Amino acid sequence: MNSYGIDIWGDENFVIKNGKVCVNFGKKPAIIDMVKELRDDGYRGPLLLRFPHLIQKQIENIYGSFTKARKEFDYKGGFNAVYPLKVNQYPGFVKNLVKLGKDYNYGLEAGSKAELLLAMAYNNENSPITVNGFKDRELINIGFIAAEMGHNITLTIEGLNELEAIIDIAKERFKPKPNIGLRVRLHSAGVGIWAKSGGIHSKFGLTSTELIEAVNLLKENKLIEQFTMIHFHLGSQINEIHPLKKALNEAGNIYTELRKMGAKNLKAINLGGGLAVEYSQFKDEKSRNYTLREYANDVVFILKNIAEQKSDIEPDIFIESGRFVAASHAVLIAPVLELFSQEYAESKLILKKQNPKLIDELYDLYQNIKPSNALEYLHDSIDHLESILTLFDLGYVDLKDRSNAEILTQLISKKAILLLKDKPSADLIAIQNEVQERYLVNFSLFQSMPDFWGLKQNFPIIPLDRLDEKPTRSASIWDITCDSDGEISYSKDNPLLLHDVDVEKENYFLGFFLMGAYQEVLGMRHNLFTHPTEASVYIDENGYVLKDIIEAQSILDILEDLDYDIHAIMDILNERISKSKLVNEKQKKHILGELYLFLNDNGYLKSIGV
Amino acid sequence: MNSYGIDIWGDENFVIKNGKVCVNFGKKPAIIDMVKELRDDGYRGPLLLRFPHLIQKQIENIYGSFTKARKEFDYKGGFNAVYPLKVNQYPGFVKNLVKLGKDYNYGLEAGSKAELLLAMAYNNENSPITVNGFKDRELINIGFIAAEMGHNITLTIEGLNELEAIIDIAKERFKPKPNIGLRVRLHSAGVGIWAKSGGIHSKFGLTSTELIEAVNLLKENKLIEQFTMIHFHLGSQINEIHPLKKALNEAGNIYTELRKMGAKNLKAINLGGGLAVEYSQFKDEKSRNYTLREYANDVVFILKNIAEQKSDIEPDIFIESGRFVAASHAVLIAPVLELFSQEYAESKLILKKQNPKLIDELYDLYQNIKPSNALEYLHDSIDHLESILTLFDLGYVDLKDRSNAEILTQLISKKAILLLKDKPSADLIAIQNEVQERYLVNFSLFQSMPDFWGLKQNFPIIPLDRLDEKPTRSASIWDITCDSDGEISYSKDNPLLLHDVDVEKENYFLGFFLMGAYQEVLGMRHNLFTHPTEASVYIDENGYVLKDIIEAQSILDILEDLDYDIHAIMDILNERISKSKLVNEKQKKHILGELYLFLNDNGYLKSIGV
Repeated sequence: MNSYGIDIWGDENFVIKNGKVCVNFGKKPAIIDMVKELRDDGYRGPLLLRFPHLIQKQIENIYGSFTKARKEFDYKGGFNAVYPLKVNQYPGFVKNLVKLGKDYNYGLEAGSKAELLLAMAYNNENSPITVNGFKDRELINIGFIAAEMGHNITLTIEGLNELEAIIDIAKERFKPKPNIGLRVRLHSAGVGIWAKSGGIHSKFGLTSTELIEAVNLLKENKLIEQFTMIHFHLGSQINEIHPLKKALNEAGNIYTELRKMGAKNLKAINLGGGLAVEYSQFKDEKSRNYTLREYANDVVFILKNIAEQKSDIEPDIFIESGRFVAASHAVLIAPVLELFSQEYAESKLILKKQNPKLIDELYDLYQNIKPSNALEYLHDSIDHLESILTLFDLGYVDLKDRSNAEILTQLISKKAILLLKDKPSADLIAIQNEVQERYLVNFSLFQSMPDFWGLKQNFPIIPLDRLDEKPTRSASIWDITCDSDGEISYSKDNPLLLHDVDVEKENYFLGFFLMGAYQEVLGMRHNLFTHPTEASVYIDENGYVLKDIIEAQSILDILEDLDYDIHAIMDILNERISKSKLVNEKQKKHILGELYLFLNDNGYLKSIGV
Repeated sequence: MNSYGIDIWGDENFVIKNGKVCVNFGKKPAIIDMVKELRDDGYRGPLLLRFPHLIQKQIENIYGSFTKARKEFDYKGGFNAVYPLKVNQYPGFVKNLVKLGKDYNYGLEAGSKAELLLAMAYNNENSPITVNGFKDRELINIGFIAAEMGHNITLTIEGLNELEAIIDIAKERFKPKPNIGLRVRLHSAGVGIWAKSGGIHSKFGLTSTELIEAVNLLKENKLIEQFTMIHFHLGSQINEIHPLKKALNEAGNIYTELRKMGAKNLKAINLGGGLAVEYSQFKDEKSRNYTLREYANDVVFILKNIAEQKSDIEPDIFIESGRFVAASHAVLIAPVLELFSQEYAESKLILKKQNPKLIDELYDLYQNIKPSNALEYLHDSIDHLESILTLFDLGYVDLKDRSNAEILTQLISKKAILLLKDKPSADLIAIQNEVQERYLVNFSLFQSMPDFWGLKQNFPIIPLDRLDEKPTRSASIWDITCDSDGEISYSKDNPLLLHDVDVEKENYFLGFFLMGAYQEVLGMRHNLFTHPTEASVYIDENGYVLKDIIEAQSILDILEDLDYDIHAIMDILNERISKSKLVNEKQKKHILGELYLFLNDNGYLKSIGV
């Protein structure tokens, strides 16, 4: 049975039971039941389901692994984590995260003014806030306000001029001050596709020379006591642990050196994010080469080692993993709207009494193809089709001939595939790729999967039911935008196999997993498709409850977002209808009512097939 | 003088005058003056300027070229154009476009429900509307409503099931009916990076066999008179004209064939979009190999030819170019916030009495470098730096040694570049690349230039003034997001040279040109940065006027967009401040006032330097 790599990417969060994808928690409810419930309530189009228990699981994993590692190595330094808001700022995620992280003192990281203000409102009291990224005087002032409100906040300095601004502002403001972190520029670099953020040519961080200058500035301005943390970040989605080990060594040495220079309150090393998520659904494309356990052990072991060597105190460990915490909590579900088969039966042929010679020949090839000549005939048929297409462009054959050629070539390639299925050849594989079935799916790839467009990041896809039936069709996935980039195709080595489906008679839903990190806020409004309808699923021993349902924006809402005056739009439409001479008054009233409904509905497709 | 390729991409829309980029229209006002005016009014952060006269120019270009070509070839068919809303749906663009296109009967194309409803509100009376993309019953019903309102609308069928739905709905609704177009699947394919949208494996369109079926269905259901158009689209940004010629031949033959089958009202061929825009600012990266004039002539000539050969009437020509019309009208302007130089003077060295041997050696290299040994010494210095970094990680040298090594290596490489500047070698070029200056610019690449992230599409960049000074620094551009992908770097062959600037003392603005197509609606809200502040610039012989200023969303607005309850956020912040024991009552009042201002301001950076 095809399990769609659930054992590779699933992390035991989901199981297949009775042919359905079920949540591996509580009574193990089937996702398809949740979808049906929402659709019975009238929600159509793509749905984003959030599973708060998976947020909890990841938080527990992180704290649990580091607690275990610190115990094992008898590590004296503390452990803290913050969640970087940029990964997912949506309330359906953030509010749950903050609630579930309270007992751990799990904090928040902000990378912009808007994120910092959000953190100041929602962060748990006493949990840490860190602020990374470039800062102007306003952002630094907001950081001071956070300290004045009582937040445990650390501003990470990305360049010396930020430090100068802090020194200025500290003189102007009230007594409470934020802690100061220094981002260090390491010569060790990550290996993932985001590796640019680490390394000596990084966008961020201070060189050794700048670090020395910074400590001197802090001392001169009596702010050295606020300096509590050094920070580095190797890049998102680190696939190998080796560069992290090198970076930790380097950062650990910088830590003890800075303390020697008099930074006596420097007690923490912040490793940034980078904990990877396994997105692959194919064994040979697996990317992560370490476990969280190994990561925690390495971090604790290396930092302990350096502290011992240098006879210094063991630093508190800070991490800022976001993808690892957020990715698994959200699943996008979208119905298949249509299959674009081009399966021509012989009955579609419209042969004439007098056909072009090439058509007669194609027909002969089709009649006489057998294993011994299949590959040769296949080649011949493709040559013939190309000739017919050229003759058509030149006006020598007509549309019926062209149609006959299309049909016959397809029939021949099908027969060839059947006859030769045990002896693969390059041509045959190419042909098989070309008969990849196109599944039109009710979602926008640009809105819901921007990292596929931008980074060619694949997400695991699995049908929500019929998993006890063997899927037979090699699929490519098409979204509903008018954009030819809105397609996910698969290689012949790792095809996505889906079931045959008659959308007129049955529903077929695809689940897109690990959608919880970055995909929501990076969502693009191509063709004005918006964030999908979302709901949170709370699961316990009694079953599950759907809560916090937020429907996708209506068409009027999105137009208002673009700064259209929606009342003016309503008025214009109204006036244009009333002026129409093509329909009578009663019909106009009907039309107006319909338009009102359409404008207040979301823009996704609804009724194709069922 | 460096003209930043303005003669390649500028299309005579902009000129350099007195060292400033000026709009080549009316009194040729300098863009920097517009920017200063807006900043004097308090607008900070990135600015998007729209130039309506450039929309008008492109519309005139298109209609003018086809009018000329039709006259030249004595072409009997008509010419029509529609603007595809997906390219830019923002009101600051669309409202101008519709107003300026009125005299031409310039219409709109829609690819989704939201876009169709927008078109029904804003399209000029009698101007055509076309609807492409996948359609459910609701979207088809909206199309019928448009016809009932009196719109001249054509629904382009992408698959047979859409046609079946139209047949159904036609039976249910009132008398007026939309026209029907059939999207044809051509075997000729485009060559650009979007070529997937054309061709036999395209996401869209009907095969010959399906076309025959469609015509039969239309006849059976007495809708053949509604069938007025065939449509194809080779893909966006077609860089070569050759594939278009092939496609036109093919489509022209399909047109005459379908008319022979009884589609007597079929009178138009819609070529879709594809007219390319030249984005390159470097001669050797120029991409477009044809002019609009050539495009128009080829289209008219080929279609005339086929009609003559087949003794059929010459079809009306429809085009749906969007990028070509929208790209030039918008310019993004963003101030440089900071330069991250790593220029170490000798004075930064903190040499000890007793240095590690490698540092002493580096110092010797620095003292004794000369043309004859420069390359050798350069290599030695890099080896030494690497050794020092390793020794640091192992705890054998300290931070001061590391800093000294950084400084000395940089001083050596600078001297080497100077000594060897007339004899380039691979190493030297590599080093020169590494000293690429990092310009931090107040914009989000994800929000304002998504095609750079997704498609590696470069846009021309040019400083708005100081163009009479020679720029000396090889630059890379960094945005203000916390994302290492937020960087535009340049190759050594085509560097972007910018001026040295002291941001503490002076402003330096970069203009990003040709931003009007796709970049706005695809904008991502990474780190919660939003659509920038925009204004339209109306230019005439008296000067220019700034109108329709829309400020970037405030932080509260963006949080509300994500479905936060902003009143709750205000209440929580209020409560947290009032509970703080770190500040007194008067200070609390002050803080609250500050927070209120920050929440109601946009999230971009403001005061770094000037």
